[in-house]
Amino acid sequence: MAREIVAPGLPTGTRDFMPEQVAQRRRIVDKVIGVYKLFGFVPLETPILERKEVLTGNNPDFRMEIFEIEQKSARINIVDGDEEAKPLALRFDLTVPLSRFIAMRKDQLPMPFKRYQLGPVFRGEKVQKGRYRQFDQLDADIVGSDSVMADMEVIAMIYNVMIALGIEDFLVRVNTRKILNALPFYAGFDQSKIVTVLRILDKLDKIGLDGVATELAKEPDDQFDTRYPDLKPQAIAKLMDFIAIKGNPDSVIGQLFNLMSTVPQAKDGLDELAAIADGMPASGIDPNRWTLEPSIVRGLEYYTGPVFETVLTSLPGFGSVFSGGRFDELIGSFIGYDIPATGASIGVDRLFAALEELNVLKEQRVSPDVMICMRPEVDRVKGLEIATMLRQAGISAELYLGQEKRLGAQIGLASNNKTPFVIILGPDEIEAGKASLKELSSGQQETLDKSEICSKIQEKLNIM
Amino acid sequence: MAREIVAPGLPTGTRDFMPEQVAQRRRIVDKVIGVYKLFGFVPLETPILERKEVLTGNNPDFRMEIFEIEQKSARINIVDGDEEAKPLALRFDLTVPLSRFIAMRKDQLPMPFKRYQLGPVFRGEKVQKGRYRQFDQLDADIVGSDSVMADMEVIAMIYNVMIALGIEDFLVRVNTRKILNALPFYAGFDQSKIVTVLRILDKLDKIGLDGVATELAKEPDDQFDTRYPDLKPQAIAKLMDFIAIKGNPDSVIGQLFNLMSTVPQAKDGLDELAAIADGMPASGIDPNRWTLEPSIVRGLEYYTGPVFETVLTSLPGFGSVFSGGRFDELIGSFIGYDIPATGASIGVDRLFAALEELNVLKEQRVSPDVMICMRPEVDRVKGLEIATMLRQAGISAELYLGQEKRLGAQIGLASNNKTPFVIILGPDEIEAGKASLKELSSGQQETLDKSEICSKIQEKLNIM
Repeated sequence: MAREIVAPGLPTGTRDFMPEQVAQRRRIVDKVIGVYKLFGFVPLETPILERKEVLTGNNPDFRMEIFEIEQKSARINIVDGDEEAKPLALRFDLTVPLSRFIAMRKDQLPMPFKRYQLGPVFRGEKVQKGRYRQFDQLDADIVGSDSVMADMEVIAMIYNVMIALGIEDFLVRVNTRKILNALPFYAGFDQSKIVTVLRILDKLDKIGLDGVATELAKEPDDQFDTRYPDLKPQAIAKLMDFIAIKGNPDSVIGQLFNLMSTVPQAKDGLDELAAIADGMPASGIDPNRWTLEPSIVRGLEYYTGPVFETVLTSLPGFGSVFSGGRFDELIGSFIGYDIPATGASIGVDRLFAALEELNVLKEQRVSPDVMICMRPEVDRVKGLEIATMLRQAGISAELYLGQEKRLGAQIGLASNNKTPFVIILGPDEIEAGKASLKELSSGQQETLDKSEICSKIQEKLNIM
Repeated sequence: MAREIVAPGLPTGTRDFMPEQVAQRRRIVDKVIGVYKLFGFVPLETPILERKEVLTGNNPDFRMEIFEIEQKSARINIVDGDEEAKPLALRFDLTVPLSRFIAMRKDQLPMPFKRYQLGPVFRGEKVQKGRYRQFDQLDADIVGSDSVMADMEVIAMIYNVMIALGIEDFLVRVNTRKILNALPFYAGFDQSKIVTVLRILDKLDKIGLDGVATELAKEPDDQFDTRYPDLKPQAIAKLMDFIAIKGNPDSVIGQLFNLMSTVPQAKDGLDELAAIADGMPASGIDPNRWTLEPSIVRGLEYYTGPVFETVLTSLPGFGSVFSGGRFDELIGSFIGYDIPATGASIGVDRLFAALEELNVLKEQRVSPDVMICMRPEVDRVKGLEIATMLRQAGISAELYLGQEKRLGAQIGLASNNKTPFVIILGPDEIEAGKASLKELSSGQQETLDKSEICSKIQEKLNIM
């Protein structure tokens, strides 16, 4: 084989997951999926490769760093009938691929269509703590319902996932983009400045009320500078009133109506939040674990209605672990007319990091139940017979396959692997049709008839 | 949002998996993983992106079509301390990444190390029936054991996976590259021709004995033509004797010893196959479901010892669904000295296609247990209350969220989704604190107190 010696290494921003990590991640993911299923979501899988234009929407302002496939590889794409190779890239989320899927299958799908999806996504972000370039997302979305009930279902689902994960201190924060889109009319500034204003409001958690007020007042450097909106003091004052709103949902609704009930453009948003506040008790949600927060923007550009995020109140500064919102126009970007949709997404890696910090992860044994160790004089086929017997009884068993002849070293491997039991085969045991069973936690060892081994191990495993 | 309208479409050779397909694939994968665990394998996950040089080994003859990441995206890779961006590509199997992982972690890992891994791999192959450019592999490998017992464990694992999947008609075919590597000494041809000869033997299933004999005799067009070895008639005759060997394992061993016992280079291979044949009964393997087949080569270049493949005897021509072998030198290509390894890989998509053709897949319901349908006069929050109650009892429930006001149309969606039950809420039910429960398979409908609903549904689900 003509391989050169190549130094082994990982691409920056990617990781290998060790066995215990894989098992713990799988356990968490299964808990989340359990809740998604309770809420009636069904699984979907889309490919990791997508056409680049599908991901970017041919948007010249598309700024996400995506991993593009080399044109020469993409050209492998050409088959009979294809005129040219479409540029390909790795998906950066699961929402755009869902929208592409719906656009292709809308006529065959039952609607509303509720799907969940787990899978890796890729972003060329600057590497920093807790940020990776390949990470798993676990999304649930409802497509084909414009009802605020669908958004309420998403909120209830988020709440129940957090509870199922054993997280005590969290807050689901809710807002609607419809209120935010009414801000120019409420505060009195030009509608062309809305994106700039929202981008500044989005920084509230980071820069505080004063920071927001300062940035809202700043003048742009020139006509191409969209960082600062140069708002008048009256507009800033009204915005500060708006983002200062705090309290329980009913109080927030009251304050919002006080400020905005005379702004016709705000009506839909106010009604939406009122409906959400009205329905939450029926979803069994603890009123201390959700809030209406009129200042929440959520970064992504495709949200059109309610938006959600979930913060861990005992880990301030960690950021949201479960967020989403309504995206009524994204599917339309593939078919020319809108199909409403709403949902939320977990970043599995960030959630996992949070659960680690919260210390709520339980240790997961991944090792088999038993390792079979043999003295060197014993025919190894005898070990194979025992392994076969154990496995046929549903007991997971590893045969020691290394080069160590000393029993102590063989048992040491089992102990390193946290294998609870070893079976020891020596010439005496073989001759007597027996085997020795050792429990590594206690050191307890007994010699048993071969026929007794399975039931003995099962008995001990049951009480572990 | 500045997205253009983009026609939705999938990259050639990729697919979306519909909910029932995802559920069925997951069920199959879980069965396979169940057997891997019984054999003591632990899970590992490596990234989808790898450094290109890791995948290709900087081999100028590397011919697999891999998807490379555009250099401008790869350059996102540069961080402080990195001199230059390493070219990146998508992995084409899970074996090379395992070897890279072992090379990086060999000093911290318990050895032998037995891992399984599930994940997508990517190949720019010509698209044809049953071949995709993204497909899932599910591998199990034993690293750090040079014992033929490890290979026997892999064979037993393959056998038990096939049984667990409910496949009746299969054959695990076993050979060793050590016998094949001795062919120049046995048949009398120049060692430089071995790759060409093996490539022709590998086509036996396709072109038959006569085809093989013809190709072995052909002359190459010129000195660069490696397609044909131009063997002498005596060499071809000896090779034909060799690949004609058939029978049960003991008989095959006997014939091999007859032909090759005087060839010293064949001794290791003969001993290896004899040991395998000797140990198989202890693994509980049905002697009709495995064979020694001296002509099996297996395409990939990195095998060094025993090789395995699994064919479906009722689907001749389908090819192998579960194959592998020993690759003692691959890890060495990263560290300069060898660490032995052996294992096998399932192509999940090909296996799934086979199970479909064999008609052994059971239908999987993915829909929730219940859909809640409401007459238009009813406050939808009442439906939310029922949904919450059901979910708290562990019953999966979907609230009808579409725009249909007619009950018949709402129930039609449930029926399309194969949801077994609907709950119907009308003004009469609400007023009486009741709800109607309808079983869609029988059409049976009854009006129940709200407090009775959960137990009634659970009762009916239990007998389904």
